[in-house]
Amino acid sequence: MRTIVWNENQKSVEIIDQNALPLEYKTVNLLTYQDVVFAIQHMTVRGAPAIGVTGAYGMALAALHSSKTDLDAMKAELYEVAQEIGNARPTAVNLWNLINHTLAYINQFDGYVDELKDHLLNLAHRLAEEDVETNLRLSKFGAELINDGDRIVHHCNTGALATVDYGTALGVIRMAHEQGKKIHVYVDETRPRLQGARLTAWELKQYGIPYDIITDSSSGHLMQMGLVDKVFFGADRVAMNGDVANKIGSYMLALAAVDNKIPVYSVFPVSTVDAKISSGKEIEIEQRDPREVLDITLGKEIVVPSGATAVNYAFDVTPNRLLTGLVTEHGVLYPPFFEKLDKIIREE
Amino acid sequence: MRTIVWNENQKSVEIIDQNALPLEYKTVNLLTYQDVVFAIQHMTVRGAPAIGVTGAYGMALAALHSSKTDLDAMKAELYEVAQEIGNARPTAVNLWNLINHTLAYINQFDGYVDELKDHLLNLAHRLAEEDVETNLRLSKFGAELINDGDRIVHHCNTGALATVDYGTALGVIRMAHEQGKKIHVYVDETRPRLQGARLTAWELKQYGIPYDIITDSSSGHLMQMGLVDKVFFGADRVAMNGDVANKIGSYMLALAAVDNKIPVYSVFPVSTVDAKISSGKEIEIEQRDPREVLDITLGKEIVVPSGATAVNYAFDVTPNRLLTGLVTEHGVLYPPFFEKLDKIIREE
Repeated sequence: MRTIVWNENQKSVEIIDQNALPLEYKTVNLLTYQDVVFAIQHMTVRGAPAIGVTGAYGMALAALHSSKTDLDAMKAELYEVAQEIGNARPTAVNLWNLINHTLAYINQFDGYVDELKDHLLNLAHRLAEEDVETNLRLSKFGAELINDGDRIVHHCNTGALATVDYGTALGVIRMAHEQGKKIHVYVDETRPRLQGARLTAWELKQYGIPYDIITDSSSGHLMQMGLVDKVFFGADRVAMNGDVANKIGSYMLALAAVDNKIPVYSVFPVSTVDAKISSGKEIEIEQRDPREVLDITLGKEIVVPSGATAVNYAFDVTPNRLLTGLVTEHGVLYPPFFEKLDKIIREE
Repeated sequence: MRTIVWNENQKSVEIIDQNALPLEYKTVNLLTYQDVVFAIQHMTVRGAPAIGVTGAYGMALAALHSSKTDLDAMKAELYEVAQEIGNARPTAVNLWNLINHTLAYINQFDGYVDELKDHLLNLAHRLAEEDVETNLRLSKFGAELINDGDRIVHHCNTGALATVDYGTALGVIRMAHEQGKKIHVYVDETRPRLQGARLTAWELKQYGIPYDIITDSSSGHLMQMGLVDKVFFGADRVAMNGDVANKIGSYMLALAAVDNKIPVYSVFPVSTVDAKISSGKEIEIEQRDPREVLDITLGKEIVVPSGATAVNYAFDVTPNRLLTGLVTEHGVLYPPFFEKLDKIIREE
């Protein structure tokens, strides 16, 4: 299941519409970089690695449709586009990482504008392939942590849908399943957007992995009852000290795991690390539309009283002290994290 | 706002339909004890103190409609009814406490059956009045803990709707507001039944207390950002060591508060204490229909994939070590709790 595919006939990025799942499986063609920005903002595509690669394709689309014939004029135009795409969502660092990677390529490029158009498309293809390979590598490292019979709590969606393919934390779970280990997944529904109940449950169903959906506030109780062996979640931005910004609720999940002596792992490609920040305190946390919280319905009826207000932070920061390990494509890192992340990033 | 009223014309218990709120404010007349059992099971009435008093009225209704003319035969019939009402929901101890209180009265009663009918109704009236008085007393003790400007996280609904009137944890908040303190309440939406988003938000609106609804997994992040001063929630059953069974999510909320050095209080009348159990480990936790988790809709569309399963524990246990204090009608108790609860219960 590939979330992001280049459609050569239409010259478009074809993505799975994640807002339509699980009711309907359909794809959407993004024909322009503006389509890319819209899709990222409205979470038609979501998941830090997936929006990073979609952003890189957005740069390629912008180049493709540029009317500029002068290289410097085109570079200036693409620089503007990069700001627009990169700011479509603030928290995930992968988006800016891949945009900056693309900008660095553009900066050093010297040749014909048509060549640049081709090269940017090829660069996006390569970043997409690298994402899949990276996920397979980190999933193999992570799967070694899972024992036959493990019952795992998973937060949000970190599967094929959140990446180009295979996934991060859910990739680890899928790999363990493919290795023949019997596992059971407790799927945090993940309010307010319900990526767990909608997307992770849907993916697990495709893979034939047994699961139960739980409300986000249930995992602590399951742990107290001895029903949970491990916790895996992804990351949207990782500080150099190993603090992890991830979907809201990850922090409280990690707290519950630590209180019950259950290992907690955050799984991510190293491209999720923001080398510029030393601690999670520096991570800007995105606030989204309060309607995401308020528009909850039960049995078709609106739930909240008229005029109700809400606060809707999309992410939180899990301090490194709560994390047993970080699963990356370079292996599982154990605390203290700073030096290990620093070494990996220097070598890359 | 009184949740439970005796309707003398109809000889019925008139309750606010909590499943219709906040869309519609309507009352339901419970004419028989079977109506009472149904209303408790389907959460037309909910909240530990409210279902306790409704249960006591159920006993009065059963006596009223009994065709027995022999006192022993009626006592036997009422004993059967007591089991049925008492088992309508398993976790809240108030229900069994008030049912047992009623049974003890029935046991020692010696007189005419019509007298017993009158006395049981008067007993229910008295228990209802006592609930209101108790709540006012504990709310005054609790309000002393709240400072001007406090930002408070509240879980589930513990207001007038959860009791006969005024409420427990929400009673404390309401009292502080009536004392003129400026406060702001972060209302946990409280999945899966959304008592926070539906009922607490509705009550706060009636009282004119400023609030924002948050997802249950958000409070930890708000605390990390320094936006929370105190946490208040209720209790469905309290063990003698001060372990508190309450709405699912209370445990993870308390963990987050402790991790951020924010005081956490559980507020309840002493009738919520189960003197028979020394620790929360002995509390049986109710599992409810998985459909409560799965029937979530966003914009009228079902969210989960077809065939999805869920686990739905209604409560969890917050260990006493996480609680700053217990607010009761006898004052605020600080740890260790056992001796203090024991002394109060012996003196009652």
